[in-house]
Amino acid sequence: MASGQGLGNRAQERVFAALDGFRIEVPSWGFSNTGTRFGKFVQAAAATSIEEKFADAGEVNKLTGAAPTVALHVLWDTPKGVKDVPQIRQLEEKYGVRAGSINPNLFQDQAYKFGAMANPDADVRKLAIAHLLESVEIGKELGSKDVSIWDSDGSNYPGTQSIRKRIVWTEEALAATHAALGPDQRMLVEYKPFEPAFYHTDIADWGMALMLAHKAGPKAKVLVDTGHHYQGQNIEQIVAWLLHMDMLGGFHFNDRKYADDDLTLGSIDPYQVFRIFHEILSETGPAVKDVAFMIDQSHNLKGKMEAAVQTVVTAQEIYARAALVDREQLGELQDKCDLVAAEELYRGCFWTDVRPMVREWREARGLAADPLAQLKTSGYVEEAAKARGAKNAGSVATYA
Amino acid sequence: MASGQGLGNRAQERVFAALDGFRIEVPSWGFSNTGTRFGKFVQAAAATSIEEKFADAGEVNKLTGAAPTVALHVLWDTPKGVKDVPQIRQLEEKYGVRAGSINPNLFQDQAYKFGAMANPDADVRKLAIAHLLESVEIGKELGSKDVSIWDSDGSNYPGTQSIRKRIVWTEEALAATHAALGPDQRMLVEYKPFEPAFYHTDIADWGMALMLAHKAGPKAKVLVDTGHHYQGQNIEQIVAWLLHMDMLGGFHFNDRKYADDDLTLGSIDPYQVFRIFHEILSETGPAVKDVAFMIDQSHNLKGKMEAAVQTVVTAQEIYARAALVDREQLGELQDKCDLVAAEELYRGCFWTDVRPMVREWREARGLAADPLAQLKTSGYVEEAAKARGAKNAGSVATYA
Amino acid sequence: MASGQGLGNRAQERVFAALDGFRIEVPSWGFSNTGTRFGKFVQAAAATSIEEKFADAGEVNKLTGAAPTVALHVLWDTPKGVKDVPQIRQLEEKYGVRAGSINPNLFQDQAYKFGAMANPDADVRKLAIAHLLESVEIGKELGSKDVSIWDSDGSNYPGTQSIRKRIVWTEEALAATHAALGPDQRMLVEYKPFEPAFYHTDIADWGMALMLAHKAGPKAKVLVDTGHHYQGQNIEQIVAWLLHMDMLGGFHFNDRKYADDDLTLGSIDPYQVFRIFHEILSETGPAVKDVAFMIDQSHNLKGKMEAAVQTVVTAQEIYARAALVDREQLGELQDKCDLVAAEELYRGCFWTDVRPMVREWREARGLAADPLAQLKTSGYVEEAAKARGAKNAGSVATYA
Amino acid sequence: MASGQGLGNRAQERVFAALDGFRIEVPSWGFSNTGTRFGKFVQAAAATSIEEKFADAGEVNKLTGAAPTVALHVLWDTPKGVKDVPQIRQLEEKYGVRAGSINPNLFQDQAYKFGAMANPDADVRKLAIAHLLESVEIGKELGSKDVSIWDSDGSNYPGTQSIRKRIVWTEEALAATHAALGPDQRMLVEYKPFEPAFYHTDIADWGMALMLAHKAGPKAKVLVDTGHHYQGQNIEQIVAWLLHMDMLGGFHFNDRKYADDDLTLGSIDPYQVFRIFHEILSETGPAVKDVAFMIDQSHNLKGKMEAAVQTVVTAQEIYARAALVDREQLGELQDKCDLVAAEELYRGCFWTDVRPMVREWREARGLAADPLAQLKTSGYVEEAAKARGAKNAGSVATYA
Repeated sequence: MASGQGLGNRAQERVFAALDGFRIEVPSWGFSNTGTRFGKFVQAAAATSIEEKFADAGEVNKLTGAAPTVALHVLWDTPKGVKDVPQIRQLEEKYGVRAGSINPNLFQDQAYKFGAMANPDADVRKLAIAHLLESVEIGKELGSKDVSIWDSDGSNYPGTQSIRKRIVWTEEALAATHAALGPDQRMLVEYKPFEPAFYHTDIADWGMALMLAHKAGPKAKVLVDTGHHYQGQNIEQIVAWLLHMDMLGGFHFNDRKYADDDLTLGSIDPYQVFRIFHEILSETGPAVKDVAFMIDQSHNLKGKMEAAVQTVVTAQEIYARAALVDREQLGELQDKCDLVAAEELYRGCFWTDVRPMVREWREARGLAADPLAQLKTSGYVEEAAKARGAKNAGSVATYA
Repeated sequence: MASGQGLGNRAQERVFAALDGFRIEVPSWGFSNTGTRFGKFVQAAAATSIEEKFADAGEVNKLTGAAPTVALHVLWDTPKGVKDVPQIRQLEEKYGVRAGSINPNLFQDQAYKFGAMANPDADVRKLAIAHLLESVEIGKELGSKDVSIWDSDGSNYPGTQSIRKRIVWTEEALAATHAALGPDQRMLVEYKPFEPAFYHTDIADWGMALMLAHKAGPKAKVLVDTGHHYQGQNIEQIVAWLLHMDMLGGFHFNDRKYADDDLTLGSIDPYQVFRIFHEILSETGPAVKDVAFMIDQSHNLKGKMEAAVQTVVTAQEIYARAALVDREQLGELQDKCDLVAAEELYRGCFWTDVRPMVREWREARGLAADPLAQLKTSGYVEEAAKARGAKNAGSVATYA
Repeated sequence: MASGQGLGNRAQERVFAALDGFRIEVPSWGFSNTGTRFGKFVQAAAATSIEEKFADAGEVNKLTGAAPTVALHVLWDTPKGVKDVPQIRQLEEKYGVRAGSINPNLFQDQAYKFGAMANPDADVRKLAIAHLLESVEIGKELGSKDVSIWDSDGSNYPGTQSIRKRIVWTEEALAATHAALGPDQRMLVEYKPFEPAFYHTDIADWGMALMLAHKAGPKAKVLVDTGHHYQGQNIEQIVAWLLHMDMLGGFHFNDRKYADDDLTLGSIDPYQVFRIFHEILSETGPAVKDVAFMIDQSHNLKGKMEAAVQTVVTAQEIYARAALVDREQLGELQDKCDLVAAEELYRGCFWTDVRPMVREWREARGLAADPLAQLKTSGYVEEAAKARGAKNAGSVATYA
Repeated sequence: MASGQGLGNRAQERVFAALDGFRIEVPSWGFSNTGTRFGKFVQAAAATSIEEKFADAGEVNKLTGAAPTVALHVLWDTPKGVKDVPQIRQLEEKYGVRAGSINPNLFQDQAYKFGAMANPDADVRKLAIAHLLESVEIGKELGSKDVSIWDSDGSNYPGTQSIRKRIVWTEEALAATHAALGPDQRMLVEYKPFEPAFYHTDIADWGMALMLAHKAGPKAKVLVDTGHHYQGQNIEQIVAWLLHMDMLGGFHFNDRKYADDDLTLGSIDPYQVFRIFHEILSETGPAVKDVAFMIDQSHNLKGKMEAAVQTVVTAQEIYARAALVDREQLGELQDKCDLVAAEELYRGCFWTDVRPMVREWREARGLAADPLAQLKTSGYVEEAAKARGAKNAGSVATYA
């Protein structure tokens, strides 16, 4: 793609087809007030209930046409477990978005101080497994495909825990969870190198996640959170390996400069997002069929709704850029080791301004031509602030 | 020092002299319940009031003989500002520890969402300066030497703030603060590369801190928090440079594996602590006279009191190791570029087990021979848990 | 800039003005065979003499219209020192490019094993200073503005060298160099955190470089090599600080994923380059007047000429993107803390495809519309390979 | 272990048993002149032939009693392939050290510019496989157990190579190599995140190495080079995982501050070495039986022989410290989550000065009490310098 002018029919076909197939899940917790360990800056318009989260998610989907599901966090969204399912079903219908992945909470209970799945205390491990099984049950009832397991376990100081024993305990908990999965369910095993455990994290990298998923059983896959990597690590290569092994379950998208900063997708390194999408689009076999795109962000400063819409739009646009790559031609240049030509072909698509074409697609699909502008003129956020402001005002959390 | 056996009289003199001169400040917030952004694990024995914090600090000092001051956090410990000073004075007398550095809070107020000293809104900047001036006033009243300024300001996304304008605003706030300092007061300017701001932090590294301190005036120095560095950065070299420029104000000691993990000193990389102390002990001029050693840690999992005592003891022991270095002989080997001999001399002192000698020093000074064991047998923590348990039980904070 | 279509006259004016003023210097060593510590892959067309380097640089300038100077490496390009100046003058005239910055070599002589400017041996330090003075002399004779000093000194093991003494020795060498500068000369002090010294580097970061430059005198400024930073470090913020202090001398541009990989500019993180150019373009005062843009890359795999042309073109294009930013409007949004609007304005310019407009500029200035394509059709590289192939064939260097 | 005094009989038994079983392999290339990409500092006493390397290795073993094998580098040490085996056998007998691991060279041939095992050109891949097969043959003839495969392949720029295709090519090469292994041979697959490839490395981390080894066959294991990790990565956890999977083949020991700096073991972070040895010593099953300890260092500044002896001695001493850990008691404290007690027990052993005890062991085994001192008084290095000086003088390699 030598230039952004006159991309031509073939490019348009590619981009439209890509956008038609593109879905990304928003997280319920992205609509409520969150913060850093130093405190929360409370937003008046933040969602304060599961209904408000569905309302917000529905609005994002209406604006973008690409976010038909909302991830649920078990403890916060379904505090009564399976009993909350009927209410969720009603909300699904009311707001036109379905429940997406089910996210167990293995970090908040005071019992989990020294771990959940890998706590040396067998009773705590049972508690964790019970919570996992309940999460599976909720997913089953909701017809939700994925249980996304983020294991925050680990230790803070060398010598204070047995890394080896904890591997076995983690294997046991995941095996028990896998055994309970329904025929259409999957479990996604997430990894993270640090935080909130600071010396060792029981599932620290994709290798550990893959081995645990492999041991758990055929319905277990790996979940890649783009913020959960070492600095300098090549995430698209990990994606390529997981596709090669048919073990890629999905993504938690966000961006970061240093650690797991949970910034909006592509805000720090947009080229990396392009490269990840390229690996996804390079795979045409079954390994890519069920890869789930999900957002996991924490909007401390940006407006929740603005940030959500901005993220979906950015994802669509970068995905469209990656869809422009002529993969056949690229493959030939790569095989000839014509480095500069291959690189120019590749990043020429990154440099191409697809925004006019994405706008055309939006209009052709009856969507808002400019979702962010539409959000602004709709007055949605102001309405929400009025309705929710009082409830949010009291919820300031502090460091100490 | 070829071996740990029979260190000899000269070594003992060095170590005893070093320990006699060694003081390290404990932070009031190290005794109360803190956590990560994912929640707090509440400890029954944690301090719930300024009096309990002084009580805990007093106990640490009694056990170790090296922690005669406690750092105060203005918002949490002196919520009424200068009016709280009389109470603090009473507590000083009652518990035998003095108020140490005064730590303003520039991150918690909802007004600080987009910054405090460098907020684009002039009214918010005034609020921040007023808080800084009150902190100076509290320090003046208490006869405390240092106001330790941690500036958490920054931005999360490229393009959203003017880095240049914020430099000027930060300079202005620090100049106003400096102007209010009493004749015996100093202000220490801390730096931190990220968190809670994730894209840019207004005072990101020692170079920025030094230039701001230099511009503020002669009573401003740089504060080095050991956890506030990039991975791979050579902290002892920064210490050497700050001593060379006579700009080293003091330390916030802690340890980390990845980010600013606030782990106990020396728990991850004890050799680094030795190297830092070596640079300190290598300086004999006035530049080192007032360097303040302070602890800034967050004990999420360890018992607060145990962790505090363990930290002070570890600091004493590593300081004693560094005191063993024969700096004259080392200088000769360094100048001859006899690398292996110099290295063996240097780290031979690190390898030397000074614990028996430190124990002798403790006994000679009428202190507990084994402070951690003494803490355990004293029943102090159990008593505290009984007295404070109910108040702590209700204070669970959560992520969302 | 909401879209890449119809950028309009005002945008074109900005971009054309920016491109008219844009100059970037190519390094002579970018045309000759270099490698990693594991060996060199020899290219037949690589330059084997100072004349061939000038020929190559001249060709790059002819194609791009933006690279009128070539950086010289004293030891490699002017082995006879000032005596080589007449030949350089002839080459300048013959190939239409002038000698640019003068780069002393303080790392290759066997005497520099334990350092050059900061070697504990006073005789070696004298040798280093003599080389620096000769570099100044060469620059003076050539009418070259900048002497770019990269200090590779440091140590590999804790305790083996005195960091403090080495600061003083480095100050002395730089002072001596500064004293010799002519009225129109500057010295640029580069920094680098590691390699080839692995434990400590005497000038490790911009803070150290700035203090050394400041101490040396008013003609000393800081040189920012984009590859010489810690992971996660915010380079554009350092640029902003250096501009604020009027201490930014220039850049060595390249890119990297992990360490100082010397990859082509913008190949890994193009958004970062945009952000750096934005800081430059935000400064309108004298602090930016003499900022020198230079390339420092090592093309191990790409063809030397292709990589050089590709780099200059990429620099022009990203500079043009940064020139699109409406800085007044951005400033207003930043001051209102309208984060999402500010970010969209800012990165909207990054997303805009300026390539058609840059092509128009090229044509309007009588330059090749597509420099890379023109290089290919010109047959220049094939000719060079024929002429230089035999000389290059024998020069394979190996690891051990 | 509360203190370093009076370690007692049980401690001595543990340490002596540990030291009796401790073997570490020295690399032939550690005795010859190597450097950084900026050049080599030539040492007069460096080995210039395979015989001199054996002589040096023999001397290290004589001094330390722990280094009975020397790793061979195929291209440099056996340039004639299997035909060199008879000479190696003679050297083994003459110098009392055996040939250890066989190290193919897949990076030096000009054909490998774009890769060896994963080069898109099938002919180059055949060349690489042929070299691997020859390495297997050499190992077979020598009765050497391990072929250590370091794959330096990768790419420097996004889009220039197909990461996916290269996985398959790498699998094919390793399968072919595995098929040729004799009944007592193993192949060890090394990983490295970057250098000399800078954007992606085909075997970038332990997960990729493990999957490749697993696919190759049962005689393939993973090789952990301690310098080949991301900053902040927990190496001992990887070791624990590899032991858990029975996939740990061995180590390349060295240390680093930033990248793959190839510094002497324990020179930067000795506590990490202790933690790695603790994981090794915690495994009592067959998974640890054949773990090979090897050194891979590049002594640019230190004397080759001094550095080699220093490394082996350091390894012995830290191994002895780790042997002091009472693993049963530690396990109990870990299971009780008594963090501080567990940590103090654990690092108490690190703090214990084992040097007197290691000296006793040396004397009891008829070895030099102080190997480094003995090396110095022996005059070995001076002799070598005289004999080899002339040959070394001519071998200066340079950057450009």
